Amino acid sequence: MQNPTAAILIIGDEILTGRTREGNAWFLAGELAKAGITLQQIRVIGDDHATIVAAVQELAGAHDHLFTSGGIGPTHDDITADAVAAAFGRGIGVRADARALLAAHYAARGTELTEARLRMARIPEGARLIDNPVSTAPGFTLENCHVMAGVPEVFQAMVAGLLPGLRGGAPLLSRSLLVMAPESSVADPLRALAEAHPEVSLGSYPFTAGGRYGTYLVVRSTDAAALDAAFSALAAAFPEGQ
Amino acid sequence: MQNPTAAILIIGDEILTGRTREGNAWFLAGELAKAGITLQQIRVIGDDHATIVAAVQELAGAHDHLFTSGGIGPTHDDITADAVAAAFGRGIGVRADARALLAAHYAARGTELTEARLRMARIPEGARLIDNPVSTAPGFTLENCHVMAGVPEVFQAMVAGLLPGLRGGAPLLSRSLLVMAPESSVADPLRALAEAHPEVSLGSYPFTAGGRYGTYLVVRSTDAAALDAAFSALAAAFPEGQ
Repeated sequence: MQNPTAAILIIGDEILTGRTREGNAWFLAGELAKAGITLQQIRVIGDDHATIVAAVQELAGAHDHLFTSGGIGPTHDDITADAVAAAFGRGIGVRADARALLAAHYAARGTELTEARLRMARIPEGARLIDNPVSTAPGFTLENCHVMAGVPEVFQAMVAGLLPGLRGGAPLLSRSLLVMAPESSVADPLRALAEAHPEVSLGSYPFTAGGRYGTYLVVRSTDAAALDAAFSALAAAFPEGQ
Repeated sequence: MQNPTAAILIIGDEILTGRTREGNAWFLAGELAKAGITLQQIRVIGDDHATIVAAVQELAGAHDHLFTSGGIGPTHDDITADAVAAAFGRGIGVRADARALLAAHYAARGTELTEARLRMARIPEGARLIDNPVSTAPGFTLENCHVMAGVPEVFQAMVAGLLPGLRGGAPLLSRSLLVMAPESSVADPLRALAEAHPEVSLGSYPFTAGGRYGTYLVVRSTDAAALDAAFSALAAAFPEGQ
């Protein structure tokens, strides 16, 4: 059976203007590989209603899962929940269960549940809440679209609660060999290995460190036996590899 | 006059599998803001010919500039140059000027110009070379698509050579105020400010540090006077801000 597929949609002007170095996609990419869900695209867009609606429709339509990050806080530029509702043609409003979570959270701190804070209880019709053990305001799943916060600690906690409930597949396994040589020196044997082992993916990632050239050779597969066979051949072709 | 628009396309399985935390898009996003080129989308895709062709056609068609990173090295998985040529319906082959650059580079090191190394001289018909002062193998510009390496040092050097030659616009300016309060406490005055200053973009970015809540309030505009006016109003609304 094929692994399910996924896309990640990062929403926020702060990424496109270079203010913030995005890290949620990197974190989730690693978690999806372990869960056996094949990530096919990451996309970053700005805080614009029409752009979010179009991207959600396209990416949710083209993949088994769409994970979003950003734009579900209390401020005027947090427009993701409304845009996701619009993308699926659903209504949206403050929902009792989400409101109750926020009411208890702010009551415990002696803080008022203002109109702005209530925005975080706006949940599209038919969505399931995603738990937020860090700061309470929930995410939600609407059809195959999982809407989560942009704050990294909250995003990671939401992913930890969400992923075990999704059907996964065979985890993507990888093994890596470090060769202290430029990529162009390893290209020919690597191509021969890739042709001999079409059942694995073989990547090469060059770097320089202290004036020396090095290349990481990475074998990836969801099939452990195929991975080991290809890695053995790789290690034999590069006996100096570490 | 409107600023030109841009998209960034990052190509590489190593990003989608979570192996590598992407940083070239972040770097280029900051450079584009300074150059007055409005970045509208970042997309990450894998090393697949048809996927690259489709993404290049879509993004180059929808923006004034498309910048790509990754997949122009010497190995079997470096397929970006061929895919970009296909996306624009151009032929591709080893070009004399690119070959001469590589020949001189490897001759100076007493290294053979192998078939694999010659792959880095494959340039689509009609493209202009982008200089690579780090490791010689050039990038190229084909129509509005700027094809650059994935290795960060090389990518940054290529950007530094390329950007001054592109028509820019008004730089995106920003000013930031730090308020030690949760985002939900600043939401109401922030919304009023955003409504009073529609000519600027106003973002809020919450964080926690040492158990305390803080929020960065960021004003952005290409109009310095509008930026200063909105920032003065912001600073007046949050006199405790730093």
